[in-house]
Amino acid sequence: MNTAIFYHAGCPVCLGAEQMVANAIDQGKYQVEVVHLGEQPSRVAEAEAAGVRSVPALVLGGQAFHINFGADIADLRP
Amino acid sequence: MNTAIFYHAGCPVCLGAEQMVANAIDQGKYQVEVVHLGEQPSRVAEAEAAGVRSVPALVLGGQAFHINFGADIADLRP
Repeated sequence: MNTAIFYHAGCPVCLGAEQMVANAIDQGKYQVEVVHLGEQPSRVAEAEAAGVRSVPALVLGGQAFHINFGADIADLRP
Repeated sequence: MNTAIFYHAGCPVCLGAEQMVANAIDQGKYQVEVVHLGEQPSRVAEAEAAGVRSVPALVLGGQAFHINFGADIADLRP
């Protein structure tokens, strides 16, 4: 199954998007994972490799979609 | 049922997002509508009222989420 990874950093913009967007994804089509980069800084590199430049972002089948703007990925690097 | 309205303007960024994001929405939870504002300029006002400032954007249950950046809504006003 394709993966949908929702990267966020706990910011208010992030949490609003998580609640709405991540929950709206069809879990019959995508395996949804939510990653808090503030708590899992070791995954920032993986997010950047997928093209994530800011959070919140949704990586759907390997393609990055930036949703509104919460924080720059550069500010989350460990 | 809640509505998910995906507003776009036919731009390449818009179409990529439409293909991935609009199709990933759980149609058991949301009634999905896709609106091409270039072809339906009369709906620009409705999009702006929902908080859409650029396209592509997804309005989920009345809340606007901007997905990457294709075009400014001001450039789509009739």
